[in-house]
Amino acid sequence: MTWVNDSNAPLLTDLYQLKMAQAYFKEGLAGTAAFDLYVRRLPPARSFLLACGLDDALGFLERLCFDHGVLDHLAELGQFSSDFLEWLAHTRFTGDVYAIPEGTPVFADEPILEVVAPLAEAQLVETFVTNQIHLQTVLASKGTRVVEAAAGRPVVDFSLRRSHGVDAGLKAARAFYVAGVASTSNVLAGRVYGIPVSGTMAHSYVQAHEDEGAAFREFLRLYPDGVVLVDTYDTLGGVRRLIALARELGERGRVSAIRLDSGDLEALSRAARRELDEAGLGQVEIFASGGLDEHSIDALVRSSAPIDGFGVGTLLGVSADAPVLDMVYKLVEYDGRGRTKLSADKRVLGGRKQVFRGKTGDVIAKADEHHTGRGLLVPVMRSGRRVLDEPLEVIRDRARREIAALPERCRSLGPIDPPYPVEVSCALSQDQERLRDELTKRSLPPR
Amino acid sequence: MTWVNDSNAPLLTDLYQLKMAQAYFKEGLAGTAAFDLYVRRLPPARSFLLACGLDDALGFLERLCFDHGVLDHLAELGQFSSDFLEWLAHTRFTGDVYAIPEGTPVFADEPILEVVAPLAEAQLVETFVTNQIHLQTVLASKGTRVVEAAAGRPVVDFSLRRSHGVDAGLKAARAFYVAGVASTSNVLAGRVYGIPVSGTMAHSYVQAHEDEGAAFREFLRLYPDGVVLVDTYDTLGGVRRLIALARELGERGRVSAIRLDSGDLEALSRAARRELDEAGLGQVEIFASGGLDEHSIDALVRSSAPIDGFGVGTLLGVSADAPVLDMVYKLVEYDGRGRTKLSADKRVLGGRKQVFRGKTGDVIAKADEHHTGRGLLVPVMRSGRRVLDEPLEVIRDRARREIAALPERCRSLGPIDPPYPVEVSCALSQDQERLRDELTKRSLPPR
Repeated sequence: MTWVNDSNAPLLTDLYQLKMAQAYFKEGLAGTAAFDLYVRRLPPARSFLLACGLDDALGFLERLCFDHGVLDHLAELGQFSSDFLEWLAHTRFTGDVYAIPEGTPVFADEPILEVVAPLAEAQLVETFVTNQIHLQTVLASKGTRVVEAAAGRPVVDFSLRRSHGVDAGLKAARAFYVAGVASTSNVLAGRVYGIPVSGTMAHSYVQAHEDEGAAFREFLRLYPDGVVLVDTYDTLGGVRRLIALARELGERGRVSAIRLDSGDLEALSRAARRELDEAGLGQVEIFASGGLDEHSIDALVRSSAPIDGFGVGTLLGVSADAPVLDMVYKLVEYDGRGRTKLSADKRVLGGRKQVFRGKTGDVIAKADEHHTGRGLLVPVMRSGRRVLDEPLEVIRDRARREIAALPERCRSLGPIDPPYPVEVSCALSQDQERLRDELTKRSLPPR
Repeated sequence: MTWVNDSNAPLLTDLYQLKMAQAYFKEGLAGTAAFDLYVRRLPPARSFLLACGLDDALGFLERLCFDHGVLDHLAELGQFSSDFLEWLAHTRFTGDVYAIPEGTPVFADEPILEVVAPLAEAQLVETFVTNQIHLQTVLASKGTRVVEAAAGRPVVDFSLRRSHGVDAGLKAARAFYVAGVASTSNVLAGRVYGIPVSGTMAHSYVQAHEDEGAAFREFLRLYPDGVVLVDTYDTLGGVRRLIALARELGERGRVSAIRLDSGDLEALSRAARRELDEAGLGQVEIFASGGLDEHSIDALVRSSAPIDGFGVGTLLGVSADAPVLDMVYKLVEYDGRGRTKLSADKRVLGGRKQVFRGKTGDVIAKADEHHTGRGLLVPVMRSGRRVLDEPLEVIRDRARREIAALPERCRSLGPIDPPYPVEVSCALSQDQERLRDELTKRSLPPR
């Protein structure tokens, strides 16, 4: 099993990045480039995205270094010259980075990150930086929807087993916590990020015992305030068994909650609530899980099903309805001149930018313009050193505050119309026309 | 940036696994358990799945060890007793594993893996093992569709930047290679797995130059047989510019292919082919990319668009149309007795099994039954030591052979009807009835 680490991470890139870097090196194209990382369009099922993943991107940039093992491998490919590999051995990321801080809602065309660095350095980091910010932005954006649907009830992240690999499993817990998820089942995420961890029992525990009653009894003996899974054989039978046991155990088996993981969760939660209340177990909460997403949670909440919290796994963990974003990293300036491209349906706004968030919407402007509202892009790295390093709780608080400040309709689950208003400033628009005119002239076909 | 590695991987689990393991330890439930890993149902858009990921699962099992750092963290959680943690310090995976080898098509309910081990050991590895086999099975299954659609034309994996994290980025290249993808842009995957790597230039390279002609000229000077991206400004203009340059350079700029990355790929490929052929550049191939999946590739191939290869990224890399499988790891036997559960819509076939693949379909049978056809489950680990360790090329060859042996309709892209026939043997069915009867008697509600 191969793990990715500081040593081999620089190879986690597309071959063309290295081939272009070699070409820049050979051609002496060493001027300063600005690349924007942004999403070309929002998935139909998203009215905003939550920026996330910057911390890991900056950690990578700060530690970028091509060591001997990596250089030896590149030499073996037979496509790189020794002078380029020598140059690569000394390459570090020395650029500046501007970013919209994690936990901020963002929209199409808004640069989440602007990397300003010598051309080859900025090119070499594209793949890894995009990979990390894409992943966590996809997942945090999904997480906000699930949290919104739960309307104040805690949501627990159960996604690890069906996340896409170990890195996604770990980062998912972080992104969901930023989005407002209350805790995770993921023990490593608890250790690395300090996220509260929770977990109780699976069906296998019940199945391994002679009968359900024995399983409940043993479990409560060890974990007196445990959450008991009642649906292994027959949900309401399980509830009754638990009630009988709780009566018998008294203070020795307090039971904090039952968990329902299958069947008609609305009907079962009502029936279970009724039985628990009639037995004087009004303090025992009901926790629901099993194939949930924002829509099924929203339906349960709207139906007033007596459910006190939700465990969400599969559909949250990969953002199943929108697992990818059309997120790109595009050259917008080189050697002091704005750059764009004219490919069909793939707009690039040339030039360095600022995004202003006002009371009524956003303006994507040139970097040196002034507009009302806050400028969202802030310096996060100077000359290869981080100047922003935020505790996770700060990011999580920002997310809660900034999402609450969005227009009400952005927090609904359906497609919204009209979308959140994002304008391109007059000055930036005029620049685009000029850039396009220049390019059209320069790229007239040679016949 | 935190990396997952041998030391912290055992914490990449759900808290409940550790809590259940502690309960088993305290209760003395140390008998042998069998857990099956299988998919409950295929996504509507899949007619088969390609088993993949076993190698990483076995690597994890072989090296499982809770070291001091991990144990200290668990102690800090305040939920684990010192005698349990002492036991955990000495725990290794000592069980047997049976699996359907990687690169084999599998169907719903068929155990891809059967873990036979002391209960707590088998429980502790659920999350990680599921995570790895789920990921690679999801991706290999998607990969087979894209390869099938390309009908013999090479497919290149471009997915790294939008894979879900670094582990998925690496494993995706492996899974796609197993599925028949020809090469990857992912340099680390090339190093780790020996997969051919390929890559040429991005739009940023063209944009960074004064004009497209200068970019092409410099690129071909360094990479005379390069693949040139022609759609940065105007696709056919780019093709003409390249033709002019190729004429000028002669043998010094051979150009192996052009790449189209936007617009109407069918129309543009035809127009580009015509221009190239008229210029005597019939040997220059046309490579297409940009938001492709099996359906768009199939449409291009059926239209006879003159495209010689495809680069596929975003929609392949996360298996966008089916990013998760309902893959579960369920207790099927403990202490010599078959185990099942009765939860609504969540069937578990109790007891240890064999899957027989015959000429007309599969039979899921009891482990000791004999049926016509090959038994797919083979021993892959004995007492915690691997007994199967296959080169990637062997797995890839198996995939090609086994997919070709499926009924023709399984290789179509649409939903198939009737599905591939999978039966449960009479003996296994009868066992299920007996198990259910026993459970129903034992789980009569206590009122």
